[in-house]
Amino acid sequence: MDAIHDFLLQNRERHQGALADLVRIPSVSALNAHKDDMRSAAEWVADALRRAGAPEATVHETGGNPIVVGGWRKPADDAPTVLIYAHYDVQPPDPLDLWTSPPFEPVIRDGLMFGRGASDDKAGVLTAITACEALTQTLGRPPVGVTLLIEGEEEIGSPNLRAFMEQHRDELAADVVVSADSVMWDHDTPSLVLGGRGIAAADITLRTSDHDLHSGLFGGIAPNATLALAHLLATLVSPDGAIMVDGFYDGVDPASAQPTDATRKAPFDLEAMLAKEGIGAAWGEPGVDPLVRNWHRPTLEVNGFHGGFGGDGSKTVIPAEAKAKITCRLVPGQVPADVLAAIERHVEQHAPPYATVQVERHPGSAAAFALSRDDPALAPAAEALAAVYGHPPLEMSLGGTLPFADLVGQLLGRSPVMLGWSMPDERLHAPDEFFRLENLELGARVYAEFLIRLAG
Amino acid sequence: MDAIHDFLLQNRERHQGALADLVRIPSVSALNAHKDDMRSAAEWVADALRRAGAPEATVHETGGNPIVVGGWRKPADDAPTVLIYAHYDVQPPDPLDLWTSPPFEPVIRDGLMFGRGASDDKAGVLTAITACEALTQTLGRPPVGVTLLIEGEEEIGSPNLRAFMEQHRDELAADVVVSADSVMWDHDTPSLVLGGRGIAAADITLRTSDHDLHSGLFGGIAPNATLALAHLLATLVSPDGAIMVDGFYDGVDPASAQPTDATRKAPFDLEAMLAKEGIGAAWGEPGVDPLVRNWHRPTLEVNGFHGGFGGDGSKTVIPAEAKAKITCRLVPGQVPADVLAAIERHVEQHAPPYATVQVERHPGSAAAFALSRDDPALAPAAEALAAVYGHPPLEMSLGGTLPFADLVGQLLGRSPVMLGWSMPDERLHAPDEFFRLENLELGARVYAEFLIRLAG
Repeated sequence: MDAIHDFLLQNRERHQGALADLVRIPSVSALNAHKDDMRSAAEWVADALRRAGAPEATVHETGGNPIVVGGWRKPADDAPTVLIYAHYDVQPPDPLDLWTSPPFEPVIRDGLMFGRGASDDKAGVLTAITACEALTQTLGRPPVGVTLLIEGEEEIGSPNLRAFMEQHRDELAADVVVSADSVMWDHDTPSLVLGGRGIAAADITLRTSDHDLHSGLFGGIAPNATLALAHLLATLVSPDGAIMVDGFYDGVDPASAQPTDATRKAPFDLEAMLAKEGIGAAWGEPGVDPLVRNWHRPTLEVNGFHGGFGGDGSKTVIPAEAKAKITCRLVPGQVPADVLAAIERHVEQHAPPYATVQVERHPGSAAAFALSRDDPALAPAAEALAAVYGHPPLEMSLGGTLPFADLVGQLLGRSPVMLGWSMPDERLHAPDEFFRLENLELGARVYAEFLIRLAG
Repeated sequence: MDAIHDFLLQNRERHQGALADLVRIPSVSALNAHKDDMRSAAEWVADALRRAGAPEATVHETGGNPIVVGGWRKPADDAPTVLIYAHYDVQPPDPLDLWTSPPFEPVIRDGLMFGRGASDDKAGVLTAITACEALTQTLGRPPVGVTLLIEGEEEIGSPNLRAFMEQHRDELAADVVVSADSVMWDHDTPSLVLGGRGIAAADITLRTSDHDLHSGLFGGIAPNATLALAHLLATLVSPDGAIMVDGFYDGVDPASAQPTDATRKAPFDLEAMLAKEGIGAAWGEPGVDPLVRNWHRPTLEVNGFHGGFGGDGSKTVIPAEAKAKITCRLVPGQVPADVLAAIERHVEQHAPPYATVQVERHPGSAAAFALSRDDPALAPAAEALAAVYGHPPLEMSLGGTLPFADLVGQLLGRSPVMLGWSMPDERLHAPDEFFRLENLELGARVYAEFLIRLAG
């Protein structure tokens, strides 16, 4: 391991430069304007794999953005093969005016690289590739079979990943599945993620007239789309955080509202988190512990609400249309399509009689996942983390979603081990996203330890 | 009058061309980017006055957009002077994608001129000027003193008009006040407006965290600004249209909720209006007749609601901030500042404990106005309308606001007679605003009849 450590030390600047190069490509999967950037990012990742010594690296076409597959076949019949997942696409950068430096011009301040996707998940892509490069440079090749699967649609729910994995089942066959798209508890606390929430998304569009109306000529006669949508959203979730959609909790274990050993052991400092993010107070399902809510209970979130005039000054219109974007985080037992159907029924029942309301489901929903405690890859992962950090990892759950986990659970019958170095405070999906650069090296060391242990 | 009619017929194309020229200037008072356009429009109006033969026409500086004053001093000591008000500023044109042709490139289709401000109130400006031009060309000059006062901030609540009128009290002294910014009942029904509602406006900004948060990492812990603002707005107005703000109705005569002779006589066809505008159903204060609500009862309208992600696809954020723009239409007895104070108190009392909420009042509120039935200018106006239309005008009220009316009531002790040819169906403040071009000529004839009658 000393040789690997030395190699990483000697190539630190080059590896950090590679991360900056990848962040510079604005691979925003949610926006059609970035189609060309998606391809550029995929090509860049395939090149990075080749530069790391991988004998195979292919950019595959899909119905959406390309998927990169590459790696090293297993060195001996009895060696296992590891499938490592990551994604090269990123969230939209807006609101742009809240970034200290431009989102796609990465800059390093105090050891932190700022840029959209620096943490989620371009560091994940490069942590795994860098580990394989270090193993190749020091041992000739990774001691196990390694297949990297790097997709470009994670941030929009991986709508093409299932078909791709089904079509490339043989190529992707693996004994162990790892996701490099993950978080640690915090910078000082290595952790093993034992589960994550699912996701389901929809847009709600409410219309009250053919066009915006003059509030003098029609005020007192015409209904108001923004006010009507506000009333409708207020029926979905109560002011104190209870989700009021009939059928929303179908299949959820009521016991999931209770604290667990893991939630009790977690060094969760609610007040510190609220202070750090400038949150006035914790909010969510009444009577449930905030960490339990984040790990084990579903949410219904309004991600955006837009209707009527939003410019400077005032404009005396009665808005004709208002739109809300909604996502739900799901827990084990919830079926994404059933949750969306429950929301559709609720909207139909609660829509005012003077409005037309449309619910449009987004593609790419995913169920929650939970890792089995006797998964054969868990112990090597825990040992690798302990070897590099000097103490054993914390067990935790993920409030976020890895569509890949749901998918790989369905296709390969196993959930992934999560090894990623995004930290919860790194402003994932928000302005001024950053990544702690030292974790590129530290993460690569853990991956190398893990792959060596898997080889037995 | 035949000579005036002939002159208008012979110069029809030139007069319509002048309206197109004025519409072409994008004089949007709400947007700072249009500062230069405001000046261009003011200069254009002063030039139009000079071309019409006015011996005086001045563009005056104010704290905001320029005000144009010009006209003809009274011809004899016993002749009255008429102050005619109009405005050259217009509402913002967005949403731009709903315009059939660009808002500031006027086009004529089937006798209708389409363009932002074509009806509100650039036609008003030119109807009055054209009448004075016709009188000058046929009689040598208008038979009464005429002062035109054309401002550029009506659509933002006339914040600088009071100070200007106080400073120019002598120059603006008049026996009769007329507003060319007004509507008729409909194209076939000349009408006299006996009152109009006031206005008060504010922005509500609600914040729940320092920045947008990842809905996976923080969902179940952090409150949601868009959902919180939806809940807050839902407390202002009930789903069935009752305004629930304590003190909002202070000073309002409860009898104003009852039908009047005028509301009963008005040929108001609710179903036809709903069908024409694509409104699903009438909505407003429960138990009150829709026309009574529009004429005589106050409203609280959300003109816009914006927060979080609004682009294509989905973005899994918990929004940190949401904003609503609010305007209230006010009736006699309501004091704008008191209404805004009541809203501020309500927001303070109903804001969730986990959010910070700020209410920012807009400048330029105005009280409602009501014209006295024995106003000496009413009979000449009614006669002028009857002479041109062949039947007497309908008595009506205005759901909209003329800040000038409140102001002139305070400064001169009289409310204006309303003579304007905007029609309620002309999409004022909305995409595809248009003006019926024939009313430029017809309105000028009524103005000429009116001024001749005032001369005695």
